[in-house]
Amino acid sequence: MKFALDITRAENFPEWYQAVVAQADLAEASPVRGCMIIKPWGWGVWELVQAALDKRIKETGHENCYFPLFIPLSFIAQEAAHVEGFAKEMAVVTHHRLKAADGKLFVDPESELEEPLVVRPTSETIIGDAFRRWVASYRDLPVLINQWANVVRWEMRTRMFLRTSEFLWQEGHTAHADAEDARAETLKMLEVYRELAEDVLAMPVVVGEKPENERFPGADNTFSIEAMMQDGKALQAGTSHYLGTNFAKAQNIRFQSATGDLEFCHTTSWGVSTRLIGGVIMTHGDDDGLRLPPKIAPKQIVIVPMLREKPEDAEVLAYCEKLKSELDRLTAFSAPVRAHLDKKPARAANKRWDWVRRGAPIILEVGPRDMANDSVTLLRRDRLRDGEKIASTGMTRSALMELAPALLADIQAALFDEAKAKRDANIRTDLATFEAVAAYFGEEAEDGAGAFKGWVRAPWSRPTGAELEQVEQRLKAYKLTLRNAPLGQEPAKGKCVFTGRDAVEDILIARAY
Amino acid sequence: MKFALDITRAENFPEWYQAVVAQADLAEASPVRGCMIIKPWGWGVWELVQAALDKRIKETGHENCYFPLFIPLSFIAQEAAHVEGFAKEMAVVTHHRLKAADGKLFVDPESELEEPLVVRPTSETIIGDAFRRWVASYRDLPVLINQWANVVRWEMRTRMFLRTSEFLWQEGHTAHADAEDARAETLKMLEVYRELAEDVLAMPVVVGEKPENERFPGADNTFSIEAMMQDGKALQAGTSHYLGTNFAKAQNIRFQSATGDLEFCHTTSWGVSTRLIGGVIMTHGDDDGLRLPPKIAPKQIVIVPMLREKPEDAEVLAYCEKLKSELDRLTAFSAPVRAHLDKKPARAANKRWDWVRRGAPIILEVGPRDMANDSVTLLRRDRLRDGEKIASTGMTRSALMELAPALLADIQAALFDEAKAKRDANIRTDLATFEAVAAYFGEEAEDGAGAFKGWVRAPWSRPTGAELEQVEQRLKAYKLTLRNAPLGQEPAKGKCVFTGRDAVEDILIARAY
Repeated sequence: MKFALDITRAENFPEWYQAVVAQADLAEASPVRGCMIIKPWGWGVWELVQAALDKRIKETGHENCYFPLFIPLSFIAQEAAHVEGFAKEMAVVTHHRLKAADGKLFVDPESELEEPLVVRPTSETIIGDAFRRWVASYRDLPVLINQWANVVRWEMRTRMFLRTSEFLWQEGHTAHADAEDARAETLKMLEVYRELAEDVLAMPVVVGEKPENERFPGADNTFSIEAMMQDGKALQAGTSHYLGTNFAKAQNIRFQSATGDLEFCHTTSWGVSTRLIGGVIMTHGDDDGLRLPPKIAPKQIVIVPMLREKPEDAEVLAYCEKLKSELDRLTAFSAPVRAHLDKKPARAANKRWDWVRRGAPIILEVGPRDMANDSVTLLRRDRLRDGEKIASTGMTRSALMELAPALLADIQAALFDEAKAKRDANIRTDLATFEAVAAYFGEEAEDGAGAFKGWVRAPWSRPTGAELEQVEQRLKAYKLTLRNAPLGQEPAKGKCVFTGRDAVEDILIARAY
Repeated sequence: MKFALDITRAENFPEWYQAVVAQADLAEASPVRGCMIIKPWGWGVWELVQAALDKRIKETGHENCYFPLFIPLSFIAQEAAHVEGFAKEMAVVTHHRLKAADGKLFVDPESELEEPLVVRPTSETIIGDAFRRWVASYRDLPVLINQWANVVRWEMRTRMFLRTSEFLWQEGHTAHADAEDARAETLKMLEVYRELAEDVLAMPVVVGEKPENERFPGADNTFSIEAMMQDGKALQAGTSHYLGTNFAKAQNIRFQSATGDLEFCHTTSWGVSTRLIGGVIMTHGDDDGLRLPPKIAPKQIVIVPMLREKPEDAEVLAYCEKLKSELDRLTAFSAPVRAHLDKKPARAANKRWDWVRRGAPIILEVGPRDMANDSVTLLRRDRLRDGEKIASTGMTRSALMELAPALLADIQAALFDEAKAKRDANIRTDLATFEAVAAYFGEEAEDGAGAFKGWVRAPWSRPTGAELEQVEQRLKAYKLTLRNAPLGQEPAKGKCVFTGRDAVEDILIARAY
């Protein structure tokens, strides 16, 4: 058995990514095109992300509820009516019965639905329909709700966690009496996402506003958090939209104001998805597999007993059990430490590799000699390099119990710092013309193995309409996109790299997932 | 404003049920046929049920994961091949694109899928397919997994929570090396369901085995928990199936045993759904609405300040805030007490009614006089009768803080005891012939308003095949079904009420949801 991935990040980043998804037991392809099976270790990570975010969603005053999976075609039509050449890849339910005859199973043609049903790609329309019923007076506002749900977008090119036909997410939907309140909500949830990404996933992000051409259809403003992956590409990790009164007008969501006028609500929506797990892999993974920030590691400390099929094995196991129950009583990040004793009947070296590739933050190896010294051999996954145990340290049991929570906190911080340093070192701010930007990125090799490129942060004049379309086309030739204009900028200096006019702000330019 | 439901249980139980679903803010009908919108209060109950069950599922060694929403038609065909005259109501996805032209939106005929996809009605087939890949050796067994998911069955007659086209559930799926281990698993999860129903939902259930004609298709044994609703009908509240090697053979799930033989796995599946909430309503609801057992009440103690738009209002509110933060520090059922201060701008009487109909276990009313006495007026929802405050008690703040956890425990126990006493008093065991059973049930009035009928527990000889079909037909004339044969029975006495032969056990006969 070879204790290594078959591929390194430098050799081929996309293939390395797929190898980590598989080797870390996160997910696997399913027999259904573009859908994946999230395996227990991957699901465990998602449960912890969910719990952390759900807590924050509730603390900011939102309530969870649940809306139907299916959306009538007529609801989508309301929105699509305005869209020239509208065509959307969605799963459509057209029939409601299967029948068997002559040993064959088929869709009963007599069971065709009067109105086709779309499997929700997002729920603005069906939730807006409820808002219309729920909101009558300013006293009913704001309405602040969220749902955890599966959604389906019929993607042609899929990649596990990053872009799958079915994915899991939360979608927040809110209605407000005025623009000010709705805008504040949009930014409040953006900040919740930033804090989740950075503090829980240890994934540094840039918070900013999307340019007009990258907005959610129907939004007045779309904000995003953008993270830099280890191949330099950007990952849009969460979005928050101020929808103005656009959806309210399309769906007639009105309320009687305090002065008796009938007014349209201002609405917002915001979401993050299982895509975040793809971000964690590409932010923290190394050539040995996944490295998990302790806050989202289903098991934070794994004990691997070094058994040799000898009589003293029972004693070593008993010592490990005691170790585990002591660790169980510790607290890290205001929650009980998640310790695990791996009792699988397998060689210790195989088990160590199992937890290295899955990214357990701390691995403790305990053999007869460790036990005799009342100590453990401790391996910090974040400091492991190329399968070497350079980070393993002998540590007495009492020191371990004293230090474990601080060690977990240190690993959490180290992963964030490492990612942030890497990102900050790879944002060019010295390119003053489009030609310079283009020269930096150059052409990307077809196999994705081109030289590493980071992001460019450049001044721009915020062009719109046809001029912005031109910008988009010029960037497209280099597979580049506009990511976002960071919030809280200093006043811009210099000229726009696209138009040559005076810049109004900086914007991020990058290749992206 | 009338502080009452429009209807009582005695007047029309099904209409009363719908009224409670609406008045307790649990759910509402959606524009999609047969689907419902679960509102925040209903979702809050479901979250607590989920958390309680998820904990138990994990404590019994299972891991959560997630499988695709869609199942290829060919997977269902594998199962259906054996089924004569198979026809199933399922939502079928046949196309993957919408298009707009001439101001109309339609399903693009060119986007037809090569193979139709069924929206999962249950996941045995797609999970079994993964088991085949995951299981190679006896060392891989048992596989113990669970998923929380939405499923769709195209129901013609729907009723909120009890039978909806889309519903939410957990489905456990396990694979084992032998029958003994798989049977033990089946019964272990049945016991988890019993304990959940009785200890968390305060809903007494009878644990037993379904007769052959009521088994899950493909199961060797199906076990259920059955609860008696207040109209005497039975609600199947959870099922656990021992599937033998039937699914393993259909899907070729095999493993190499310790002796080197290739053997089929023994599999199980088990599930409970949002139907449980329907059970809670019909077990505990009264003519004022819902009564929630404290363990699943999203808010256990609600403070209603008696404000009069007078200067002392601010003082009362401040007193209530202090009360809430003191309650927040208490613990009940090993978790922080869930207290809530209702600050909505509404009359106190309206607010009281809001929490009465929603079933908050304890309502505290606090006016200037209460405040002056450093006390509250306490209303126990479980003892409220017909909107009268017979259960309201003056209580000092210090007594409240001392007694609140015990009061919540007492309400939890009282609801269970009340339901159990009602159920136990309504199981007839004295009917020795089918004629006597038929005479007891008689004909049910069409409007459901017939005289109350409970269950019959009668000895039977466990007929099978054609003889059992006859039994089913005879019962059907009275809208009756066989529910289950309770586990742990004393040896049966007497003759079978259906066949006249010596009985082997007792079985429950009832009308059912």
